[in-house]
Amino acid sequence: MIIQKEITLASYRKGFHLITNEIQKQLPELPQFGLIHIFIKHTSAGLSINENADPTVRKDLDYVFNKLIPENDPKYTHVFEGSDDMPAHVKAAIAGQSISIPITNHKLNLGIWQGIYLCEFRNNAGNRKLCITIIN
Amino acid sequence: MIIQKEITLASYRKGFHLITNEIQKQLPELPQFGLIHIFIKHTSAGLSINENADPTVRKDLDYVFNKLIPENDPKYTHVFEGSDDMPAHVKAAIAGQSISIPITNHKLNLGIWQGIYLCEFRNNAGNRKLCITIIN
Amino acid sequence: MIIQKEITLASYRKGFHLITNEIQKQLPELPQFGLIHIFIKHTSAGLSINENADPTVRKDLDYVFNKLIPENDPKYTHVFEGSDDMPAHVKAAIAGQSISIPITNHKLNLGIWQGIYLCEFRNNAGNRKLCITIIN
Repeated sequence: MIIQKEITLASYRKGFHLITNEIQKQLPELPQFGLIHIFIKHTSAGLSINENADPTVRKDLDYVFNKLIPENDPKYTHVFEGSDDMPAHVKAAIAGQSISIPITNHKLNLGIWQGIYLCEFRNNAGNRKLCITIIN
Repeated sequence: MIIQKEITLASYRKGFHLITNEIQKQLPELPQFGLIHIFIKHTSAGLSINENADPTVRKDLDYVFNKLIPENDPKYTHVFEGSDDMPAHVKAAIAGQSISIPITNHKLNLGIWQGIYLCEFRNNAGNRKLCITIIN
Repeated sequence: MIIQKEITLASYRKGFHLITNEIQKQLPELPQFGLIHIFIKHTSAGLSINENADPTVRKDLDYVFNKLIPENDPKYTHVFEGSDDMPAHVKAAIAGQSISIPITNHKLNLGIWQGIYLCEFRNNAGNRKLCITIIN
């Protein structure tokens, strides 16, 4: 059985953001066992799972992604949408467009330190759309 | 309910290639709601979702992946299959071997700018095999 | 229909490890067709699919990940859990926390050279927990 729902996130600035609560508040009742698939319908942002406690993890992730994929590389040819655009496409390819998490006893079965991240790679992105699919 | 199908892609040269149409032409009728999982049965290529419009995005992705994971690093030890082989394994680990996309109203629910990429990391790879699983 | 099972892996040292057999020994009987989702409940390790034959691939993967995301970068701010911790979070974001593999004729439908990797990014991690969800 499939339950599906599209949601729109609040607008976030460039960086890694913990959105576990924002997503959970918009979920329907979860089945006893199943899988949740969360898909971001964009090509310059991603979804990831990482540490839910210390915000310096998010800060350092942003630092490393910027260091690995810098803006203004003179070899980029896709430059007409701004200096943050091509790096955003590469970072999105690395982070990935979907996460999937087991559902156990009507809850997301995340590890104790795990949270859901929006990886926002554009400077002025606006609101990102997610499609959530629950399988049981 | 599960529908499963294996398909073989055309042969592509090293780089990132838009294969949305090639895949869609080989899909069975899709359910109203569900999830499609596309899996590449290889270790030196990947699947990804990224921009479907400007081909310079694919060109620059190839450039960045080559820059981050260059050939002929003297510290590589897995070298007997050619200088493109070990970088291909690393790039495949970064890109990932599967993508999954929501199905809504009998269609792939991709964002307006999203397309499916074959990430071909070998110089002479031949035809890649995909296993497509549709869940509804 | 959903079948779900949590398992605990043996303890591994930092690096990439082939765990296909360790996982398969703990699987229930698989359905004729379906999808298996394997999720690691941690933020400093990942799961991946890569070459199952030559162990030098795993060695070189560890080398490249260490080169791309070195320890002791003076710009890291998340440093209180040891010099291997923040790089582990970044590597985990790149490798990913789950893999999913088609099930065909009651078996994992992996390519001939594909195996399941535990990507252990901490020096002293202990036993990692996985949640396995089988959909059919």
